Order: sequence, then C-alpha cells, then structure tokens
Amino acid sequence: MIAATPDPPYLAAIFSSQRTEGDQGYGAMAERMVELAREQPGFLGVESARDAQGFGITVSYWRDEASIANWKANAEHAVAQRLGRDQWYGAFHLRICRVEREYGLDSSMGRR
Amino acid sequence: MIAATPDPPYLAAIFSSQRTEGDQGYGAMAERMVELAREQPGFLGVESARDAQGFGITVSYWRDEASIANWKANAEHAVAQRLGRDQWYGAFHLRICRVEREYGLDSSMGRR
Repeated sequence: MIAATPDPPYLAAIFSSQRTEGDQGYGAMAERMVELAREQPGFLGVESARDAQGFGITVSYWRDEASIANWKANAEHAVAQRLGRDQWYGAFHLRICRVEREYGLDSSMGRR
Repeated sequence: MIAATPDPPYLAAIFSSQRTEGDQGYGAMAERMVELAREQPGFLGVESARDAQGFGITVSYWRDEASIANWKANAEHAVAQRLGRDQWYGAFHLRICRVEREYGLDSSMGRR
C-alpha cells in the first residue's frame, strides 16, 4: 500500500534484500518490526514488496535523522537486525535518502 | 537483485504502484523500459519487486537531475507513462530522492 507521507522534504530508508530459504521466524518478526516502527517518533509510513524469488524492497519514511537514529538503536530492532544479518538475508543494502519532490495518482493525493 | 551503485551522493527514483487486474501488455513493456533505461546517460542501476497482490516498488538510481529529466522526457518512456496512468496502475507514487549514505552486506560491498 502506498504510504500517505507529508510534503517533502523528509527522509526515506530504502532497504533492499534477498531472503534466504525457509521462514526461520522471519515472517512474524517482519510483522512485529512494522508494528514497532509505527510507534516510533518521526515515523511517517512504510511500503514493502517481496517477489516470489525472495527479493524484496521495504521503504520506510522518517521525519529527520534523529528519528532514523532512534529507530536504528531500538533494542528490539537491534535483535532483528542481527538475526537478519546472520540468518534471514543472503544480501541486503540500506540507502538513506532525502526525498526532494514527489507526485502520484493515488487516494491521498488525487491526480497531480 | 541489489544494484551495484557508486558511492553517494546520487539520486533515487522510488516508484510505488498497485497494478490493475490482468497483464494488458504490462509485462513486455516493463521489461522494455528496464532495457531502455539502462541505455540512458546517467543510469546507475535499478531494483524491483512486486508481490502476489500486485503491489510493487521499483527504485531506479541516477547520476543527477539532468539524467532523470532526460529519462522522463524519453518518447518511448512517455508512451509507457501514459499507459501506466490510464491502464496498468490503480495507484502510483513517485518520489525523487538524494541518496546520502548507505551500507550493506552484498557481493558488491562486502560486509561493512
């Protein structure tokens, strides 16, 4: 689902990953991480898609660097990050970006 | 597959979309657009994932604003953009961002 973010500027964390075989507790933890992220200060939204070959992109949107730093340091999230690195992801890449402009056709914006 | 982009800064175009039902020529055009994008000046890479419910995220990476503007104005791409708006996407959102930093665990970077 497309995230209803505010007007730019704000930050985006693009997390691209290739899953290893088997669930190994990944599904439950991924759901929990979205739930936990939503509770964090400065969280603006999240979008996620993973294909049948296990390649996925999750983009989370944040108000500022402080909110990203806070989320990165969250204790429960730190456990998930370690499990991700050790078990769940064959490869991953995180890019932190500043959203400068946007447009779209969706319910939150109308046609523009 | 994770794109092997150069060191930041560079730009990212995050395209989030919900597909309508049925192919309607979408698959062939999507493949052609990736092929065409790769030929454009300033193209740095692309990552894409779409889930079983038709929600997808494609992130393309570009050297600068000029390369994004050139790609947006490409005649063949313009046809695809119009078909996307009219037929293929129930909703979409494009965000243009500046990648500021990154890290990952993948073959292009090693563990860092």
